[in-house]
Amino acid sequence: MSDPLIVRALRGEEVERTPVWFMRQAGRYMAVYRELRSRVSFLDLCRSAELACEVTFQPLDAFRLDAAIVFSDILTVIEAVGREVEFEKGKGPVIHDPVRSAADAKSLRRPDVSETTLRVASDTIRLFRQSRPDMPILGFAGAPFTLLCYLIQGGGSKSFDEVKKLLWTDPQTAQQLLDLLADVVGDHMQAQAEAGAVGVQIFDTWAGILSPEDWERFALPSIQRALARVSGAPTIHYTRDNAPFLDRLHKTGADAFGIDWRVDIGHARAVLGDVPLQGNMDPVALYAPPDEITRRVHRILDAAGPRNHIFNLGHGVLPTTPISGVEAMIEAVHSHRRA
Amino acid sequence: MSDPLIVRALRGEEVERTPVWFMRQAGRYMAVYRELRSRVSFLDLCRSAELACEVTFQPLDAFRLDAAIVFSDILTVIEAVGREVEFEKGKGPVIHDPVRSAADAKSLRRPDVSETTLRVASDTIRLFRQSRPDMPILGFAGAPFTLLCYLIQGGGSKSFDEVKKLLWTDPQTAQQLLDLLADVVGDHMQAQAEAGAVGVQIFDTWAGILSPEDWERFALPSIQRALARVSGAPTIHYTRDNAPFLDRLHKTGADAFGIDWRVDIGHARAVLGDVPLQGNMDPVALYAPPDEITRRVHRILDAAGPRNHIFNLGHGVLPTTPISGVEAMIEAVHSHRRA
Repeated sequence: MSDPLIVRALRGEEVERTPVWFMRQAGRYMAVYRELRSRVSFLDLCRSAELACEVTFQPLDAFRLDAAIVFSDILTVIEAVGREVEFEKGKGPVIHDPVRSAADAKSLRRPDVSETTLRVASDTIRLFRQSRPDMPILGFAGAPFTLLCYLIQGGGSKSFDEVKKLLWTDPQTAQQLLDLLADVVGDHMQAQAEAGAVGVQIFDTWAGILSPEDWERFALPSIQRALARVSGAPTIHYTRDNAPFLDRLHKTGADAFGIDWRVDIGHARAVLGDVPLQGNMDPVALYAPPDEITRRVHRILDAAGPRNHIFNLGHGVLPTTPISGVEAMIEAVHSHRRA
Repeated sequence: MSDPLIVRALRGEEVERTPVWFMRQAGRYMAVYRELRSRVSFLDLCRSAELACEVTFQPLDAFRLDAAIVFSDILTVIEAVGREVEFEKGKGPVIHDPVRSAADAKSLRRPDVSETTLRVASDTIRLFRQSRPDMPILGFAGAPFTLLCYLIQGGGSKSFDEVKKLLWTDPQTAQQLLDLLADVVGDHMQAQAEAGAVGVQIFDTWAGILSPEDWERFALPSIQRALARVSGAPTIHYTRDNAPFLDRLHKTGADAFGIDWRVDIGHARAVLGDVPLQGNMDPVALYAPPDEITRRVHRILDAAGPRNHIFNLGHGVLPTTPISGVEAMIEAVHSHRRA
């Protein structure tokens, strides 16, 4: 029996159909997820391999997907280095004790990932593989710069002013923090690969707030440092707003690249060449009528080409997304006939 | 006497020093502005030419700037077509009765701009020119697509889901709205040019949420339609997140282009060629130490070159920006020596 579609696509092999999964495929847009969340907090889901495994299964039971992605949260790394994260309703993650100085930075620890709550992600992957050895599962982690954003700012932000202030007034401390985060992120990714993930995605959600010069100085080296610790599975790099860095993404050392919906994937192919690309439908397009969804899916599949492509959204699915839109998207990937 | 620096830079002429102004230069980061706002609401400032003129002067009294920009708000056009806008503290603009259907769209009107509150902007420009005939003043307007975003969504949004739903389920109504807004925006810009503005900027703040295909279908034609009505002064196009569209910006028909700080301005020059570019320092860089600000300003000036450049931020100045950062930036533009 041949390897699963996504495994072959990540190796750049010819595949009979483009594989499909999508970011946040286990989440609030599904009624079964909301039902579970009415009883269990988000953090408790992330702290139990059994519950995380149950949630990981939910979209697989509902849709014809080609991969699972482990249910977890990028901010577990923040907890592992020594800062508590709270999820306040409607506000997103909050870190009440953000790191703003060299002295603050000294209070962080360098954990052994197997001895922290980070272990839950690998345990979930192992548990999942016991019940569904036929279904490939992906692991993931937040990128060092994105984690640094939360650690310094203390939550989401429009401008991340506190983050940039530290980068430019005390670049040495910023660099120490990035090094620490990169090492933990790399070990966390490697642990998931060793648990059996067929690929591990690194989410640099906020790197797009940086100018190209600052991206090369802060975000890029920390990704390189993290990925240098991963050898067990192919890695997928993702940044929102990655249009300004497209021609430099190969420097990250990742094996595959997620593409923002604001980039034409045909253009990304021309710039990045014959490497696996992942994406890139506008998540809001799932609110469109089915015909329009089909047209958009087929346009992306045609532009990306028959090899080196994993279909996905360009960003996470939104909580109010209609199920019918998700169904139409996945159906369109399955029904696509290559020219 | 030769024309002012900014006038010559907008014509593409050689200038002895790159001119500088910056987006939101009249605003909350200044104590004199906050003092005035403690007595007068934002909307009342926009509704009085005398008060708007007073605010327009504030940054000119404080810094060595090369242009004023009329104090006004892009959402005055929303009021002119028939929807009330409220500014709720900490929430930004709110339109309580957003347009979500063809029936809603029918309730809008096509105003004569000289008979609405839009007139205040032109009156402010005339008043300013009477007291400072030596200082060039810029006009501005919101772009049709950005105004459509507020009109449909009813305020700011992370995803603008309601906007995209209307674009894709009822493109005909969306197009009628864009046509209406484009005509009013164009007339509003032309009125400011006729009042004596030396240039008029069109802000398409939200166009960057669109995929390139959707940008070409919705944002681009509406800008073209608006700018076709402007003949009295050079036009400057600005979009946040414009990296994906850089190679298509010339299609807008604008005379000059604002550049996002996430784009290297040397790269923008290579793509856009020998046209006036405006930008592009990260607004958050104004929190950096003076030496770092100087380094960044000089780097941008060197990369943009001695002609066809107007120094600016890549987005509006933030309300908490230190005055010393603004001073360091402007000083660095004045002290720059060309290689």
